[in-house]
Amino acid sequence: MKQTNKLWQNQTALLPLIEEYTVGNDHEIDQKLLPYDVLASKAHAAMLVKTGVLTTSENDKLQAGLDRVLEKWQKGDFKVTREQEDVHTALENYLTTKYGEIGKKIHTGRSRNDQALVMIRLYLIEQLETIADSMSKLSATLLDKAEQNAQVPMPGYTHTQKAMPTTVGLWLASFAAGFQDSEGFINSTAKLLDQNPLGSASGFGVESAVVDRNFTTKALGFARTQENPLYCGLSRGMFEGVTLQTLAMPMQLCGRFAADMMLFTMQEFGYFSLPASFTTGSSIMPQKRNYDLFEIMRANVRAYLSKASEIQQIVAGLISGYNRDVQITKRLVVEGIELCVQTIAVTESVVQQMHVHEDVLKTAMTSDLFATARVYKLVEQGMPFRDAYLKIKQELGV
Amino acid sequence: MKQTNKLWQNQTALLPLIEEYTVGNDHEIDQKLLPYDVLASKAHAAMLVKTGVLTTSENDKLQAGLDRVLEKWQKGDFKVTREQEDVHTALENYLTTKYGEIGKKIHTGRSRNDQALVMIRLYLIEQLETIADSMSKLSATLLDKAEQNAQVPMPGYTHTQKAMPTTVGLWLASFAAGFQDSEGFINSTAKLLDQNPLGSASGFGVESAVVDRNFTTKALGFARTQENPLYCGLSRGMFEGVTLQTLAMPMQLCGRFAADMMLFTMQEFGYFSLPASFTTGSSIMPQKRNYDLFEIMRANVRAYLSKASEIQQIVAGLISGYNRDVQITKRLVVEGIELCVQTIAVTESVVQQMHVHEDVLKTAMTSDLFATARVYKLVEQGMPFRDAYLKIKQELGV
Amino acid sequence: MKQTNKLWQNQTALLPLIEEYTVGNDHEIDQKLLPYDVLASKAHAAMLVKTGVLTTSENDKLQAGLDRVLEKWQKGDFKVTREQEDVHTALENYLTTKYGEIGKKIHTGRSRNDQALVMIRLYLIEQLETIADSMSKLSATLLDKAEQNAQVPMPGYTHTQKAMPTTVGLWLASFAAGFQDSEGFINSTAKLLDQNPLGSASGFGVESAVVDRNFTTKALGFARTQENPLYCGLSRGMFEGVTLQTLAMPMQLCGRFAADMMLFTMQEFGYFSLPASFTTGSSIMPQKRNYDLFEIMRANVRAYLSKASEIQQIVAGLISGYNRDVQITKRLVVEGIELCVQTIAVTESVVQQMHVHEDVLKTAMTSDLFATARVYKLVEQGMPFRDAYLKIKQELGV
Amino acid sequence: MKQTNKLWQNQTALLPLIEEYTVGNDHEIDQKLLPYDVLASKAHAAMLVKTGVLTTSENDKLQAGLDRVLEKWQKGDFKVTREQEDVHTALENYLTTKYGEIGKKIHTGRSRNDQALVMIRLYLIEQLETIADSMSKLSATLLDKAEQNAQVPMPGYTHTQKAMPTTVGLWLASFAAGFQDSEGFINSTAKLLDQNPLGSASGFGVESAVVDRNFTTKALGFARTQENPLYCGLSRGMFEGVTLQTLAMPMQLCGRFAADMMLFTMQEFGYFSLPASFTTGSSIMPQKRNYDLFEIMRANVRAYLSKASEIQQIVAGLISGYNRDVQITKRLVVEGIELCVQTIAVTESVVQQMHVHEDVLKTAMTSDLFATARVYKLVEQGMPFRDAYLKIKQELGV
Repeated sequence: MKQTNKLWQNQTALLPLIEEYTVGNDHEIDQKLLPYDVLASKAHAAMLVKTGVLTTSENDKLQAGLDRVLEKWQKGDFKVTREQEDVHTALENYLTTKYGEIGKKIHTGRSRNDQALVMIRLYLIEQLETIADSMSKLSATLLDKAEQNAQVPMPGYTHTQKAMPTTVGLWLASFAAGFQDSEGFINSTAKLLDQNPLGSASGFGVESAVVDRNFTTKALGFARTQENPLYCGLSRGMFEGVTLQTLAMPMQLCGRFAADMMLFTMQEFGYFSLPASFTTGSSIMPQKRNYDLFEIMRANVRAYLSKASEIQQIVAGLISGYNRDVQITKRLVVEGIELCVQTIAVTESVVQQMHVHEDVLKTAMTSDLFATARVYKLVEQGMPFRDAYLKIKQELGV
Repeated sequence: MKQTNKLWQNQTALLPLIEEYTVGNDHEIDQKLLPYDVLASKAHAAMLVKTGVLTTSENDKLQAGLDRVLEKWQKGDFKVTREQEDVHTALENYLTTKYGEIGKKIHTGRSRNDQALVMIRLYLIEQLETIADSMSKLSATLLDKAEQNAQVPMPGYTHTQKAMPTTVGLWLASFAAGFQDSEGFINSTAKLLDQNPLGSASGFGVESAVVDRNFTTKALGFARTQENPLYCGLSRGMFEGVTLQTLAMPMQLCGRFAADMMLFTMQEFGYFSLPASFTTGSSIMPQKRNYDLFEIMRANVRAYLSKASEIQQIVAGLISGYNRDVQITKRLVVEGIELCVQTIAVTESVVQQMHVHEDVLKTAMTSDLFATARVYKLVEQGMPFRDAYLKIKQELGV
Repeated sequence: MKQTNKLWQNQTALLPLIEEYTVGNDHEIDQKLLPYDVLASKAHAAMLVKTGVLTTSENDKLQAGLDRVLEKWQKGDFKVTREQEDVHTALENYLTTKYGEIGKKIHTGRSRNDQALVMIRLYLIEQLETIADSMSKLSATLLDKAEQNAQVPMPGYTHTQKAMPTTVGLWLASFAAGFQDSEGFINSTAKLLDQNPLGSASGFGVESAVVDRNFTTKALGFARTQENPLYCGLSRGMFEGVTLQTLAMPMQLCGRFAADMMLFTMQEFGYFSLPASFTTGSSIMPQKRNYDLFEIMRANVRAYLSKASEIQQIVAGLISGYNRDVQITKRLVVEGIELCVQTIAVTESVVQQMHVHEDVLKTAMTSDLFATARVYKLVEQGMPFRDAYLKIKQELGV
Repeated sequence: MKQTNKLWQNQTALLPLIEEYTVGNDHEIDQKLLPYDVLASKAHAAMLVKTGVLTTSENDKLQAGLDRVLEKWQKGDFKVTREQEDVHTALENYLTTKYGEIGKKIHTGRSRNDQALVMIRLYLIEQLETIADSMSKLSATLLDKAEQNAQVPMPGYTHTQKAMPTTVGLWLASFAAGFQDSEGFINSTAKLLDQNPLGSASGFGVESAVVDRNFTTKALGFARTQENPLYCGLSRGMFEGVTLQTLAMPMQLCGRFAADMMLFTMQEFGYFSLPASFTTGSSIMPQKRNYDLFEIMRANVRAYLSKASEIQQIVAGLISGYNRDVQITKRLVVEGIELCVQTIAVTESVVQQMHVHEDVLKTAMTSDLFATARVYKLVEQGMPFRDAYLKIKQELGV
């Protein structure tokens, strides 16, 4: 009987149409998050020894069982199915099947709500650390490249028109500055996330000595316990939105870098180019060398921003307490994180490999770029700025 | 050598990081759309006979080969891989491997751009028809249920507060009216989509007698040819956005129906209920009966609206001509369509199965709901409306 | 006593903080919509004669009073204030102050809910007609310009790289095709809106002979009555969203035209230019000629799309019956319509005045644009397409 | 001649249609931001003394002139007009008209780009401080109210169904925890903004001794100079997006509090109520007491989130250097900030004044809320959790 797979086991089976609609692809996302559920479950079981729910030997078996799940998962042998609904059910089912009675005890003092909360939080904290590292590497790469090209002139554009002279070095360093500034945010968000929601159960806590929240806080390395159980619930989806919005700044920087590269690799500019291994061709135009990666990056940045906003809209009008709407935010946050990780890696690779065509850039430094410099020369000779500006404007016949 | 799988075959292989980033999961979506590519490819091959590129026997082989692909696909034996990038490449590779020389000829007079355009368009037209049918069925179901409950009273709410009396019949019929009005739009969009983009090649047409666009228009059953090849390109992504926005009205109606049902199935109301096969339980609270489907519906409606808006933002600022950004819109439109199909099916099922608790509703018809009726009684006796209103207000002590 | 201005007149005054928050700038938007409220009020008063609530002479006074309001408004002498909350209250207050008793009777059989519904609907229908006209004019202008430039060559771009030859004529005509296709939608939406919500009162109708809905339907020129009063309520906000989404297609076309113009007016291209009266300068760079209008257009298109999506998100999760959330959609739809009207007018003006630099475009037709034509020459000589493609690719050394 | 009002003064006047389209209502927003432009202009003028562009007496006049502008503004006597385009032009025009020659000198070493950047930044930093203060006050008010109601029972809901017992105290404190956590973010963003962009001129800096950036950094109290001038440009719009996203967390909390209040003030619940001065009535239903403020709050939160996302989409795909698209973000950020300030003030007022109906809440504590407690009792007696859960479930007949 299929229904017995579920942790809530009603007597009437759920309609397949409703099951498909409500579970959707959630089990596929849970498949990715399994290690974090194992980690939290191990801490939870250890805690249950302390509070007397489990014996040491029961706990040993559960720890071994959970380790076994992780091993199987790493080999691709542990699958969360749609009928199980989620990884939490898959885990409990496995333990109960293998170890009987004690598998039934592990859910003591927790709910799938706090299991999901702690699993996602551990995942996000780890991802933020990884991304912070890759961004700091990207800043360094940009600054290296900027230094190599510190003296290479480049037309500066405003209103998509040539404006004033700048350098390739300054241009590259402007992105580095943005990535560096983003790091402060990531730290701030990591600090926000660094509070343990495990033990909030279904959002109202457990009024029983079977739970010792500080134990799992310590065991999982959280900086603090997220004390108010209703706040744990409120933070589901909201913290996911905050996390994606935190990374919106580096994503936007990547999007703007892509826009620049798209323009400056056009044949009409030719300021920069990338090795052939970065470009694609056309199925009917034999001459083409396309920088598809920047088009995809540009679109991915918009897709990323949409996901971040989508999470916010989904949770914005919900009443307190668990609402299953938040399930939809799980896939969005994982996809968003993956887009961010990839986009930064691709940008890093592009900066490392880009060719700067110094000769082309020098030729592009046409005289109009220096009109403002002529104004300032007059200013330095004592003419009021606005008069100098008008004088040069008149000379240029504009 | 992996690279030879691609239709544009450069001498230098694409970096794996870049391939993964640019192709993403696009091949998985193409896997779903294969039948439409086969259909269009068959029409294209038949056209090439007419223009003398293929002999009849070459065409026969291609037709058989394409039918074979479809059969394999139906059995789950034809897979589009990431290295192939897309279904178009998978098809040509298959034909070339199996039939040699003639497989190389099928791409004559087309590009992957117009292949994708026509494939997606055929898919969308078919889906719109299916959805229009299911919506018309849903309207009928709602009206049936409305008729059955035409006399069942129900409190009407404004500002989420009891306002005036209404009936379950009127309430259900209000949604039916909305779904019926939506059908006009769907027809209008279906008419917009009903123009053949095949033959626009990479967006600039083919200046050669090898292409006869009217032939494929007729063969594929399109109402007309989308003449201007640059307009074919412009419409990629834009038509997808239009399609999802067309279905935004029925989706919003579902979202609002879900909001009503969520409220009126609360224990504090109990106006309506659904059979146990529609509800879920809790992993720790044994008493729970949850209407998860409405929570998921509510979130899915927001997710749907986000996808529709995301498509628009992705294409909004692009220059003319093919930009690979549009690839990202393919997945979004397919996911959106699938959400819509499912949401309407679930709503249909809910309306059919919902219990209307007439006794509870009758008890809920408290006297405050009739205050306005008292005002109108005074008006009918000749008192100016505003005075009657104030008189009753005073009597109620508000 | 300030509170007596309100139609609902509680004994306790509303806190200023709450009044400011809830009314916001709504009265400023209502100021623009006043003529439509007057129009509907005149039809409503005429109806009340038929149903015996008003005498003919009372109605004559009300008609004169309403005409007087419109006159004052046209001269800028009639102002809706924040304390009045909305134009509906301002109208009733004016009539009651000027005509006493009969002013108190005009609200018979209606609520502010259906007053707002019918006012906005009349406004939207009129705007859609105006926009359809201006779009049809824009299509004609584009086609004229296209015909004048039918033979002027222009590089076609894919992936923001030179791809194949096209013409200025085809490029301009591609936008015309899009605007022409948009007209079908506008008609479809106009038809949806063409149903009279007046008489639905606060969303539950009026169970009294004082209201004859068909009378106002005819008097206001609606095609039909929106029968179900709850559907009238459901359509508030939803129809506004539909209207803006209908115009999203022409707006996106404008956005893409702007993107093209921004690129092709760069000094590095110089394909097109506009007279000096369309461009701006810089406060410090005397040489600049900036095409700010395309930047603003690009941003306005995104702002427009955001507004359309915002309306949808605001109403998506509401329960049935009036919710004041919809008030926020009024400003959004009016701002959206105004953006659309302006954007089309500016585009029209740009197309009329743009200079096509034929000599520059001819110089831009470099040999790489003709690589595909060379492939097709080989195909016409009998070589399979893919082989011809590879042969030319090899010759080009790509 | 109208055109002479502009800082860039072309010989050909800008078309009125184009002027209206490009300037829009930007001058109205600038009207609000004037004090920050005055502040920055004073610092800039003082700097020009140090670098020898202005004499001390010239500076004294400019300082007095700028103070005079501020005084006039405070009295409502200084208006930025559309022909002037912006506050920067209005200021320079005023100074030049009043003081002649020296008014022409103040623009030395700056552009309208960095003037706008520094003006907006000073505004945002000040607003963030104000908001942080009001949020900290709101947290305190919530905690006070929570303490007063620490023992008042309240049903906890999951899936919008009664779930487990909680208290009014815990419920209120959960929002306080969220507001407190938000403060960390606001500080982080305030720190990001705390860098001086003045002196970056039009985005490429000024290569001249007339500018001493550290001087204005110190004079304006910035923590540091935003060194890279291209980064100053990149940050326009992006920092505005970051700021609004920072406040998205408290805004979402307000939205969710509004959703709770909307439900719990329904007649069917009656858990909480607000004084009559917070509620409105109906124009036709004399009995109504509506909590409009929560509907507006709910909609405003969605409007706020849309604005935040809109800013991001507007800047996401722009190339480096100034693009006028960012002008549109100015109005959005100011409107967003104002919504946030108001929403927090209204929430504060609501929490202070809300009545907690203890008797109603006690009655609402039905036995089903205690089912999980019964499970835990069995667990404490040694039964495995899942068995205890099933036993109670069976007893409840679910």
